Amino acid sequence: MSTAAKGLEGVIAADTELSFIDGEKGVLEYVGIAIDELARHSSFEETVFLLWNKRLPKKNELDEFRTLIRKNSEISDATVAQINALPKTAQPMHALRTMVSYLALEDSEPNSVKPDEVQRKALSILCKAPAIVTTFDRRRRGLERVSPDPDLSIAANFLYMLNGKKPTETMERAFDVCLILHADHGLNASTFTGRVIISTLSDIYSTITGAIGALRGPLHGGANEGVMTMLNEIPSVDDVEKYVLDKLKRKDKIMGFGHRVYKAYDPRATYLKTLAKQLASDTGNSDLYEKSHRVEEIMDREVGSKGIYPNVDFYSATTYHCIGLQLDLFTPMFALSRISGWTGHALEQLETNRLIRPGAEYNGPHGVSYTPIEKR
Amino acid sequence: MSTAAKGLEGVIAADTELSFIDGEKGVLEYVGIAIDELARHSSFEETVFLLWNKRLPKKNELDEFRTLIRKNSEISDATVAQINALPKTAQPMHALRTMVSYLALEDSEPNSVKPDEVQRKALSILCKAPAIVTTFDRRRRGLERVSPDPDLSIAANFLYMLNGKKPTETMERAFDVCLILHADHGLNASTFTGRVIISTLSDIYSTITGAIGALRGPLHGGANEGVMTMLNEIPSVDDVEKYVLDKLKRKDKIMGFGHRVYKAYDPRATYLKTLAKQLASDTGNSDLYEKSHRVEEIMDREVGSKGIYPNVDFYSATTYHCIGLQLDLFTPMFALSRISGWTGHALEQLETNRLIRPGAEYNGPHGVSYTPIEKR
Repeated sequence: MSTAAKGLEGVIAADTELSFIDGEKGVLEYVGIAIDELARHSSFEETVFLLWNKRLPKKNELDEFRTLIRKNSEISDATVAQINALPKTAQPMHALRTMVSYLALEDSEPNSVKPDEVQRKALSILCKAPAIVTTFDRRRRGLERVSPDPDLSIAANFLYMLNGKKPTETMERAFDVCLILHADHGLNASTFTGRVIISTLSDIYSTITGAIGALRGPLHGGANEGVMTMLNEIPSVDDVEKYVLDKLKRKDKIMGFGHRVYKAYDPRATYLKTLAKQLASDTGNSDLYEKSHRVEEIMDREVGSKGIYPNVDFYSATTYHCIGLQLDLFTPMFALSRISGWTGHALEQLETNRLIRPGAEYNGPHGVSYTPIEKR
Repeated sequence: MSTAAKGLEGVIAADTELSFIDGEKGVLEYVGIAIDELARHSSFEETVFLLWNKRLPKKNELDEFRTLIRKNSEISDATVAQINALPKTAQPMHALRTMVSYLALEDSEPNSVKPDEVQRKALSILCKAPAIVTTFDRRRRGLERVSPDPDLSIAANFLYMLNGKKPTETMERAFDVCLILHADHGLNASTFTGRVIISTLSDIYSTITGAIGALRGPLHGGANEGVMTMLNEIPSVDDVEKYVLDKLKRKDKIMGFGHRVYKAYDPRATYLKTLAKQLASDTGNSDLYEKSHRVEEIMDREVGSKGIYPNVDFYSATTYHCIGLQLDLFTPMFALSRISGWTGHALEQLETNRLIRPGAEYNGPHGVSYTPIEKR
């Protein structure tokens, strides 16, 4: 019988002051502030500052932070050339992971783990990730790249570089909220990956590169594509009930519902739902929103009593679709946001670092002698 | 008071049948076979097969495996072009991490986690890593790249591509033994990183890329450079005693001594020491070996009773130097070997997968309200 704590469930692996989750009550706080308040009143820039400094910025600090962001949001010609040399058919998560790793090569001192330098490097990665993703995406669509506009927020800039035109206010706001909602979430698998990597006193490029790799998995960030795929499978709002009931009968998973942590309504989904509705209406995608809403109604009627509710992925799908993202850019958007949380956790890990090296239980044979090949 | 298991020390995070370590007794076995037996009688190719199949190969299986290795050891023209576009001043570990990540982009189906496909992809990565490292290294030295020779072993091929000429038998053997000795070592930080990544059902490229990032850290694989740096600081064998005693007096760390796991002689260091001596003599580096040996004598006299012995890094340094490796290629060599162990663990994780998601203890404030920026 194995004594391993499978999945490390129930094991407390680190201390944090970043996010607090009460899955039973449906609470998520960043540094004590309810996620819904941040979603309604804050910006992604401010949230990044909050996660890295454990307090909201004063006016002059936010201005300074925004200046730094502007200065870091363009990628070098060499980076553009590298992206242009990637196969167009490649999946964007693999491209993003590769190019974030590559950014280390353009840094003459990539290895410093001093907190202020880690922050500076992480800010550079965070700011360049939108240009990486959009340069890759526009090229594969046969379009010229669009350079960042220094007057725009991170959210608006991304949409500008993606679509070649400035977003509407609702688009910018909805996307900004998505970035806020995905910024941090306890010791999820990618954040934990990052903590293990930086615990060797490796660097922030290795940390974020590794975390992107973990996020790609279908049991983690990769799941957010599934919601859109499901919605595309349902022809119209009238077909939702039969579709969901059939799935439930076959015990198939309904994408975007349930969460290992939340047994109540995912607090990230509340405000996003309102925004998704508005955005869908603005962009002529009300059908998509109506389908989503109907899925939620049926699910609530059928399994609501079991604590299975929509999670943050569910209304992210409508939002991402409405702002013009192709399906395989959904997970990169998650990565773009989570770079902030990964960095916050890396900074915390470095504060009181101890190499993360668990034990394994060995279940194999002992004292086997080496049999020469002719006698095997 | 934190309840976190810092560094996860004492936590059993997984089952394994790959390597068994008894740190008190100085035992390391791969699938039950003592590391010293493998070092003396096996080859790296055979060890890779052992770790991926949990048994030694029969003659025809090893032949087949070697054929596959030969077929996979050249990198594409596009990969060469990417490497040639990297800054020459970049550190090889960052270059290796980036290029392993890049290999996913040349794979039309990078995401499969079926065991046989994971093995096939991992073998391709393992075989291409030597060409990546040597192409990068020769370019920065202003030398033409050397294509792999299909008749050579992985060890010999690496040295051929590095130095542009075939290695002597002792060089090949010593390097092959280094590769065997570094192949697997329980749930070290990079292997654990890989397990966390693949536990999201992400892919083997993400897994190995993330693990390389963790290995780079000075508390993990990055430590092996330190031994050589130390040996270079000691002018001659006559200066060793004073150097070591001074360091001990200042409570400085002597690089290459002690190990979080081993409290006895590192079983990987025994045979390597013999080979290092021979190799040093063959290559006119006996001084280097003599300095190392003298460091060991002084350390044994001074702190041997405390269970502080040379670890695998210690005589690896002499070996790597004698085969022609620059200092910053020491850790990439460790990575090259450990790809085999990372893959073995990824395969094990997939066998009975459960997402690795530990908890964190939240120590921050609660219920903080969002203060508007003008009131901060």
